[in-house]
Amino acid sequence: GVMEDLITCVEEQPQPPSSLPNSWTNQHSDSAQRTDEEPKAVGGFVLVHAGAGYHSESKAKEYKHVCKRACQRAVERLRAGALAMEAVAAALVELEDSPFTNAGMGSNLNLSGEIECDASIMDGKSLHYGSVGAIRGIKNPVLVAHRLLSEAQKGKLSAGRIPPCFLVGRGAHDWAVAHGIPPCPFSLSAYKRNKRKMEIAEKMDTPENPMKRRRQSSETVSTFIGPSSAFDGVSSENGSECLDTVGAIVVDQEGNVASAVSSGGLAMKHPGRVGQAAHYGCGCWAQNSCNSNPYSTAVSTSGCGEHLIRTMLARECSVALQAEDAHQALLDAMQNQFISSPFLASEDRVLGGVIVLRCCRCEEDPPSQDLQASLVEFLWSHSTESMCVGYMSAQDSRAKTHISRLPPGAVPGHSLAIEGGVCRLTSGAQAGP
Amino acid sequence: GVMEDLITCVEEQPQPPSSLPNSWTNQHSDSAQRTDEEPKAVGGFVLVHAGAGYHSESKAKEYKHVCKRACQRAVERLRAGALAMEAVAAALVELEDSPFTNAGMGSNLNLSGEIECDASIMDGKSLHYGSVGAIRGIKNPVLVAHRLLSEAQKGKLSAGRIPPCFLVGRGAHDWAVAHGIPPCPFSLSAYKRNKRKMEIAEKMDTPENPMKRRRQSSETVSTFIGPSSAFDGVSSENGSECLDTVGAIVVDQEGNVASAVSSGGLAMKHPGRVGQAAHYGCGCWAQNSCNSNPYSTAVSTSGCGEHLIRTMLARECSVALQAEDAHQALLDAMQNQFISSPFLASEDRVLGGVIVLRCCRCEEDPPSQDLQASLVEFLWSHSTESMCVGYMSAQDSRAKTHISRLPPGAVPGHSLAIEGGVCRLTSGAQAGP
Repeated sequence: GVMEDLITCVEEQPQPPSSLPNSWTNQHSDSAQRTDEEPKAVGGFVLVHAGAGYHSESKAKEYKHVCKRACQRAVERLRAGALAMEAVAAALVELEDSPFTNAGMGSNLNLSGEIECDASIMDGKSLHYGSVGAIRGIKNPVLVAHRLLSEAQKGKLSAGRIPPCFLVGRGAHDWAVAHGIPPCPFSLSAYKRNKRKMEIAEKMDTPENPMKRRRQSSETVSTFIGPSSAFDGVSSENGSECLDTVGAIVVDQEGNVASAVSSGGLAMKHPGRVGQAAHYGCGCWAQNSCNSNPYSTAVSTSGCGEHLIRTMLARECSVALQAEDAHQALLDAMQNQFISSPFLASEDRVLGGVIVLRCCRCEEDPPSQDLQASLVEFLWSHSTESMCVGYMSAQDSRAKTHISRLPPGAVPGHSLAIEGGVCRLTSGAQAGP
Repeated sequence: GVMEDLITCVEEQPQPPSSLPNSWTNQHSDSAQRTDEEPKAVGGFVLVHAGAGYHSESKAKEYKHVCKRACQRAVERLRAGALAMEAVAAALVELEDSPFTNAGMGSNLNLSGEIECDASIMDGKSLHYGSVGAIRGIKNPVLVAHRLLSEAQKGKLSAGRIPPCFLVGRGAHDWAVAHGIPPCPFSLSAYKRNKRKMEIAEKMDTPENPMKRRRQSSETVSTFIGPSSAFDGVSSENGSECLDTVGAIVVDQEGNVASAVSSGGLAMKHPGRVGQAAHYGCGCWAQNSCNSNPYSTAVSTSGCGEHLIRTMLARECSVALQAEDAHQALLDAMQNQFISSPFLASEDRVLGGVIVLRCCRCEEDPPSQDLQASLVEFLWSHSTESMCVGYMSAQDSRAKTHISRLPPGAVPGHSLAIEGGVCRLTSGAQAGP
């Protein structure tokens, strides 16, 4: 059909493991896990996204840059021996701290001119989960979600009370502060100053007006599907605001997976609106392999929160990824359980994107007696015009970044792009340089 | 195994359709759907719960009473020709309005001495969903969830913005008031007066102290499983607080299903804590039959919110109910995806309950040319000491209520009770008296 014809598929070749940069043992002397033994060949892989939506060429540059930094942060933690959970949180902090992303203090403003953030994190090893919704005045919402998860792992509170996994609003803010996470008052004037700087940078960078370019792109699309009210200027402009989320997924050297997601939500949203980034099963998912599941899987989503909630996209993708062919499984899930989902039958277009990975041990062909090898398959797919991703293994010297785009003439909200790659991880005592 | 030995199963016999009470056409003259035509033989069925937890004998009486009234409200709406959505909302309002239930203004207080409520509703026909979390100062949170669902069904807001399906905290309150739902300031002194009345009523009703009785019950349990710290006094007392939720599920004469759930949350919860009642897939689920699903299914849950969230119990039960044997499917789901769920491996006991129904057309054996028949199978199951349910078909003159209890010696959080029945619905032009 038309859908399949439009699908792009670029299989990345596994990168040859590059030697560790000499500087890393010096750079990360603050790590608790660091020992003075010989450095080991640590495995681990991170894939991040900075939103599925529309990225102008100038924005793309900034997004790639923040994705690269986020990958580096995660890999630094992995090289220091951290588990996937810690690495994924480190990537998210970097993504939240960028004024360019719609997360943390760079978030969209709601109808009252305030920032309210959603974030969640999931540990594939313990299957614990932590989430905050509509939280204000905290620089890194993902750290509150992370702390909720850690506290819940400690077991019951006094009087046998069950610890919360999901806190919202003022209560979430107060809980964070009570647990040592500093409040960070939001200043509208500083926010506006930042946003203006971004706009200026964007104008200087781009020879033509990016808004005009997007309009033209929409017109092409409109021609493609014939006359339709679904792609009027308003919808298109709204579509471009759907840079709803940032996220990351990680597998560590022990094969544990973790995922996280963070979002400032839709621009001009109603105060108190909570999107998929704070919704269990919708914003992120991570599940280590077990008896019934041969693969460890991790997923993080981006796009229009309500679409991602009502299709529970993160969990659905995780379930789908237990099938033999990861690429086909993700494509089918995105097609049948997202774009064509009966839950979204009344929507004129369904906008979102996912990053996924799955990992299994390579039992055959071990690289040596001392090393264990894992195969990581990673993919991204989106129905939005574009999606910005970055990825890196702990054995790489630098992150790769990529703006994935729908092919020319494809219809955002109706068509899919899907790409990915394979990475072979080794862990254990280093056999030699 | 031990689990199976403890399971009780009471198959209710289908009730013979009783004649409609003469009074109903007078009682419900306020209905918009009412016409002056001859009353039709309207079908429809409602099943409600007033929480899974521990019910003393005296509390049981009150809970049964409110379940009965809730069933009657739903059936009144069904007889007036309302769809399942409207009927399920009517049942929930009645359940929320009781000072005995942990929902609406009778809710548990949080750590700050305030009431914060969660509620959600799902329409099996449109698959739309509405939800509020940690909302204060609104008498009937389910009506806000209902209104969110209705507004979302109308399509996009101005400037192409997607309407929210989930609002929390102050924002949810303000949205409700802006949409004509009156605020209802919470008075702690009135709350305490109500609670004291309840306690006095309970003491007068019961010859022995209910707290003492529960302790004894826990000791029996403790003997049953041998020495264990999991069933100390504190845990047991906490268990009794897990009357977390009220809910209802409805099928109307057209075979549409709807479900809803409402909760005041755990006593002494942290402000901003949101439980399963506001979590998509966790508190309630409703899905009409479609190409891939032969049955329409509806589910509402109760119990410890975090356990119900992390297992997505409502949706899992709905998926399971597409299997041939509903009773076995629900039992397997409760056993494998709740009590023994890998997501709750670290929990010492897993406390919750569900009400479910599924419905399909009876193609064979139609009662007459003019009538269509549907078969409704309904079940409840819980791992808590007890669960209070009520049910009624539109052809019944009164609701049945029941306190389901674990059999003597069974271990709350580890054992299951499951019961249910079958109801045959007819709809179409009435063939005769």
